[in-house]
Amino acid sequence: MTAAQDFLIAPSILSADFARLGEEVDNVLAAGADVVHFDVMDNHYVPNLTIGPMVCKALRKHGVTAPIDVHLMVKPVDRMISDFIEAGASYITFHPEASEHVDRSLQLIRDGGCKAGLVFNPATPLSYLDYVMDKVDMVLLMSVNPGFGGQSFIPGTMNKLREARARIDASKYDIRLEIDGGVKVDNIAEIAAAGADTFVAGSAIFSAHQASDPHGYDSVIQQMREALAKA
Amino acid sequence: MTAAQDFLIAPSILSADFARLGEEVDNVLAAGADVVHFDVMDNHYVPNLTIGPMVCKALRKHGVTAPIDVHLMVKPVDRMISDFIEAGASYITFHPEASEHVDRSLQLIRDGGCKAGLVFNPATPLSYLDYVMDKVDMVLLMSVNPGFGGQSFIPGTMNKLREARARIDASKYDIRLEIDGGVKVDNIAEIAAAGADTFVAGSAIFSAHQASDPHGYDSVIQQMREALAKA
Amino acid sequence: MTAAQDFLIAPSILSADFARLGEEVDNVLAAGADVVHFDVMDNHYVPNLTIGPMVCKALRKHGVTAPIDVHLMVKPVDRMISDFIEAGASYITFHPEASEHVDRSLQLIRDGGCKAGLVFNPATPLSYLDYVMDKVDMVLLMSVNPGFGGQSFIPGTMNKLREARARIDASKYDIRLEIDGGVKVDNIAEIAAAGADTFVAGSAIFSAHQASDPHGYDSVIQQMREALAKA
Amino acid sequence: MTAAQDFLIAPSILSADFARLGEEVDNVLAAGADVVHFDVMDNHYVPNLTIGPMVCKALRKHGVTAPIDVHLMVKPVDRMISDFIEAGASYITFHPEASEHVDRSLQLIRDGGCKAGLVFNPATPLSYLDYVMDKVDMVLLMSVNPGFGGQSFIPGTMNKLREARARIDASKYDIRLEIDGGVKVDNIAEIAAAGADTFVAGSAIFSAHQASDPHGYDSVIQQMREALAKA
Amino acid sequence: MTAAQDFLIAPSILSADFARLGEEVDNVLAAGADVVHFDVMDNHYVPNLTIGPMVCKALRKHGVTAPIDVHLMVKPVDRMISDFIEAGASYITFHPEASEHVDRSLQLIRDGGCKAGLVFNPATPLSYLDYVMDKVDMVLLMSVNPGFGGQSFIPGTMNKLREARARIDASKYDIRLEIDGGVKVDNIAEIAAAGADTFVAGSAIFSAHQASDPHGYDSVIQQMREALAKA
Amino acid sequence: MTAAQDFLIAPSILSADFARLGEEVDNVLAAGADVVHFDVMDNHYVPNLTIGPMVCKALRKHGVTAPIDVHLMVKPVDRMISDFIEAGASYITFHPEASEHVDRSLQLIRDGGCKAGLVFNPATPLSYLDYVMDKVDMVLLMSVNPGFGGQSFIPGTMNKLREARARIDASKYDIRLEIDGGVKVDNIAEIAAAGADTFVAGSAIFSAHQASDPHGYDSVIQQMREALAKA
Repeated sequence: MTAAQDFLIAPSILSADFARLGEEVDNVLAAGADVVHFDVMDNHYVPNLTIGPMVCKALRKHGVTAPIDVHLMVKPVDRMISDFIEAGASYITFHPEASEHVDRSLQLIRDGGCKAGLVFNPATPLSYLDYVMDKVDMVLLMSVNPGFGGQSFIPGTMNKLREARARIDASKYDIRLEIDGGVKVDNIAEIAAAGADTFVAGSAIFSAHQASDPHGYDSVIQQMREALAKA
Repeated sequence: MTAAQDFLIAPSILSADFARLGEEVDNVLAAGADVVHFDVMDNHYVPNLTIGPMVCKALRKHGVTAPIDVHLMVKPVDRMISDFIEAGASYITFHPEASEHVDRSLQLIRDGGCKAGLVFNPATPLSYLDYVMDKVDMVLLMSVNPGFGGQSFIPGTMNKLREARARIDASKYDIRLEIDGGVKVDNIAEIAAAGADTFVAGSAIFSAHQASDPHGYDSVIQQMREALAKA
Repeated sequence: MTAAQDFLIAPSILSADFARLGEEVDNVLAAGADVVHFDVMDNHYVPNLTIGPMVCKALRKHGVTAPIDVHLMVKPVDRMISDFIEAGASYITFHPEASEHVDRSLQLIRDGGCKAGLVFNPATPLSYLDYVMDKVDMVLLMSVNPGFGGQSFIPGTMNKLREARARIDASKYDIRLEIDGGVKVDNIAEIAAAGADTFVAGSAIFSAHQASDPHGYDSVIQQMREALAKA
Repeated sequence: MTAAQDFLIAPSILSADFARLGEEVDNVLAAGADVVHFDVMDNHYVPNLTIGPMVCKALRKHGVTAPIDVHLMVKPVDRMISDFIEAGASYITFHPEASEHVDRSLQLIRDGGCKAGLVFNPATPLSYLDYVMDKVDMVLLMSVNPGFGGQSFIPGTMNKLREARARIDASKYDIRLEIDGGVKVDNIAEIAAAGADTFVAGSAIFSAHQASDPHGYDSVIQQMREALAKA
Repeated sequence: MTAAQDFLIAPSILSADFARLGEEVDNVLAAGADVVHFDVMDNHYVPNLTIGPMVCKALRKHGVTAPIDVHLMVKPVDRMISDFIEAGASYITFHPEASEHVDRSLQLIRDGGCKAGLVFNPATPLSYLDYVMDKVDMVLLMSVNPGFGGQSFIPGTMNKLREARARIDASKYDIRLEIDGGVKVDNIAEIAAAGADTFVAGSAIFSAHQASDPHGYDSVIQQMREALAKA
Repeated sequence: MTAAQDFLIAPSILSADFARLGEEVDNVLAAGADVVHFDVMDNHYVPNLTIGPMVCKALRKHGVTAPIDVHLMVKPVDRMISDFIEAGASYITFHPEASEHVDRSLQLIRDGGCKAGLVFNPATPLSYLDYVMDKVDMVLLMSVNPGFGGQSFIPGTMNKLREARARIDASKYDIRLEIDGGVKVDNIAEIAAAGADTFVAGSAIFSAHQASDPHGYDSVIQQMREALAKA
């Protein structure tokens, strides 16, 4: 079981204001976030195009020192992996269906000094983990379909979290179990109980802030921490 | 011949600081820029991935009212066209090789209330213009290869500009002739003389600013205007 | 175990006469068929191109009210899903390898008011079912390779049927188990015994009719029912 | 100039009733149509999927002896070319952008005993004809964008027709000049005057029939002939 | 357990001298190699392009009668399968991710009179074997990532070998278990103990020869046999 | 007009014996050939897969010092360009349709110290040359369709040669005009008269040798030279 202090909250900057991204990231980290979650879409693997390595590099140059957790929703992945290593990423995760050579892509990330991970779409079987447990630092389960808007947490993910947790625990490796999609104050405890230890949240955090409450981040992140502490 | 007052200077925000993009765009417009040039790359048509519709939308929400000139270096183009229409683009240009249905894609842009254009890579023949002069508001000639760094103005573009200018003048349509790649204070007059009326400049403008001179933009844009006035 | 009355016979219209398709479908339904099986090939996922949404719509306009069971042998699938929803499909099934976002494609079908299913090529593992049992109304096992002619029932499918049946029964969901390829009067009972409850048959049914016997359909369908009743 | 008696009217069966296609084709031929125009879409080259070789073969088996003019809106083309040769096509036309080896694909068609043609999208330059005039039996100009609904005749096509006609006349080869998109009774004369000699018409012909008038085909085709006779 | 005399050593000709390939192959066979391993890369499935069917045919014409074991690192696979059948291949193996229709591709190989196999990348799950054990003559596990240079044996492969061996033994079929990547004199016994019976070795064998020792092949192959005998 | 001594004869090694390639190349050069023509096919741009950079490197290591003229029938081209630069190519030519960035690919070749060229399929218009005459060292016209066997010289190529020759002469650049496909002793003079100065010949040369005549190369090359001298 993950110790409470080990829970990481990772706001997705897709919900931040791109006109003043440095400030938004500073604020959310000051409010207690642990990790900057960075969603990269290429209009091929998913039907949207978001932000690339230059934006990551700009955040580092701006002074962000927190881990940047890059989720590649792109296909193929190897060129983007190289570019994000150079741009200052901390974690780089990709979908196993998006690389012809999963083992090689994982090695490429680690050889670049980053932590490597695989992302599982809601319907993707966990069998892609069978022979790479010694090469992943993170397993990311999607609890919504990536690249499409307006979705809520897919209930079946709870079971999948438990299975992924069992695989991780059995492996004895130090692997984070991240969840992305529909995470909120009122379900985060249950999600943690199912085995997740790293929580991506986008609109839940940023929309709180962008409303009239200037300390919106703080309170949402604070509430998430409290919910996790009780879990 | 284009009247001097009709020259448009279009800084490419790829050279701006993405951590404070709104402020950078405000500054460059205040310094006299006419148009915000917005380079979209998808890691398929070109070997890089930059920024997508969300960033464009954020600039509009931030208060940018100047024309936003979106250059799509993506393939295929139609979904991105729809997304950028909704995100507040003013111009949308694409490469004819990147759409199976060029006429249809141009119509899609105009039906969305935007101005439409075609972009020509350095080696791409102008024959793609043969049957669409009534449907383009802009012709963009690349004077470097898009998506690759560290290049300088390809000299052969001068001749191509003259040919494009002749096609535009013969057509009687109101079509801007834009140039992108290696445009600087010391060659802008010659480029204008060859027929261009809209000038993309990235590092030439932004790197001036990011150095110690807080009014770098102003002076570079001012010098470009002076060079154009003499042309 | 499925009750005998729950067996569905689904003639594939690929074996019908496309010059008088409405009449053929009327006849085969009158002869006792339960479902119209509609095979869509795009010359990319399989090496053939057959019929699309317009033909489905024509059957509905012609007056067909029986369920139309659309098997998409296309890649990608999402645009065809939308088109067949609008064209009046009842079931829409697709191959998990043909969608980057299987969960999302299944949801798209159900959101359109149709029943959703996954199709398994002879060599495709059933692990694609691991996290979608709550989202499928049908599992279709191919007992030949789709898109290629002149094949007979692959014997290994019997075992796969038993495994699929076990997964369905364990799930408690109401999911049909369909079989397609080489189904005939003399093996249908054995196939049913292995767990199938919905039977696609093409040439077995239509070729009977197109021979001299004007009631060919009737007798073949009748014989299949009798064989199933004994099973 | 083409002699009046050489004008061919080619109804597109995409507008026919697919539930009784044989009868529809019989009727439209009886009403005076010269050629059956057969539109093949694969959901890749254009965003739709229509009908393939089996449907063509069914028309031949049904007794259709008129020329069948197959317009491939597919990419790649070579496998479909072979399939349509075997299915009884008379003409097979394809888009030059859809084949890596245009000369070879044209030869493949002729080697199969069919007449070969190239199709030009509204924006596609005619330079693709430069080195194949000795290998084409038909040039088809699209006056709408293929695969998208609800469009009207693109006016710029008139000029393009004149240029294509000039190329054909200069070549001395016996090449038909076909036009497809928005052809109606009231513009067919002008289109013929610009150089076309083969006219695809879909809804203009079939929708006349499907209304209450049982002789709708006859009158529309008759009116087209009269307009052409005056041209 | 495999009998010692059943171990096959399969030098990969990628490490041979392509300027005198016939001679190299003759030498390595004379030195005791059992099988010629032939690596085909297409610059799409892997980032390299090597040799195709013509080279295989030349070896047969040169007089090579030993089995030629063709490993297709290409996507798609079916055209290459046909070409290598005609070129004289003995075994043809391919990656399950590289064919839309794995069962069909396996049948194509056997119908051509060759032995068929599936290749597993280091991270690829063995579940692709679930429904094809009756159709494979060989299972090839990659112990490095194919198409990339300078890699050593991936330790996790030992476990995967044991699992593959268990599947093969349980199936009762006569299936070879081949290993490719980083096999050397000093690890071949351990690899055999984990279940492999066919050993690809490239530089280990050929580089021995190309050094000053004219009998380099002999001694390396001899040492491998000795290590295997002790295993 | 090209001086007689400037004609280059370039045997294609696709017709050589791959089991003793070094010897074959030595022989053909000794017999008077000027250039080694090296055909690279990837089973994507053309339906065949031949030989890659390793084979080129082996020829250099074997001692071949004559120019190696690499014709890339691959898509995309940039990775193969880099690999062949490193493998010792002298010329590298590619098809303009096979690169998204033709100008960039040409620069890549020259930056690597090789001579760059564009290849034109029989139906490909010469307009791709419009803006790159200062960047090509060779124009290669295909007089058969690349990648397909058993074809003879396409007569229309004569005219195309004259047009290409006119473009080259007008450019004032030093550019070779190469022809590939169906070149024989009895048409080489006419082809030279139309403007070609570099002649690829495969089976014409190698099949002479492989017959009983041990000096077959010599005589065919000698006869070609004589025919050229008279031209």
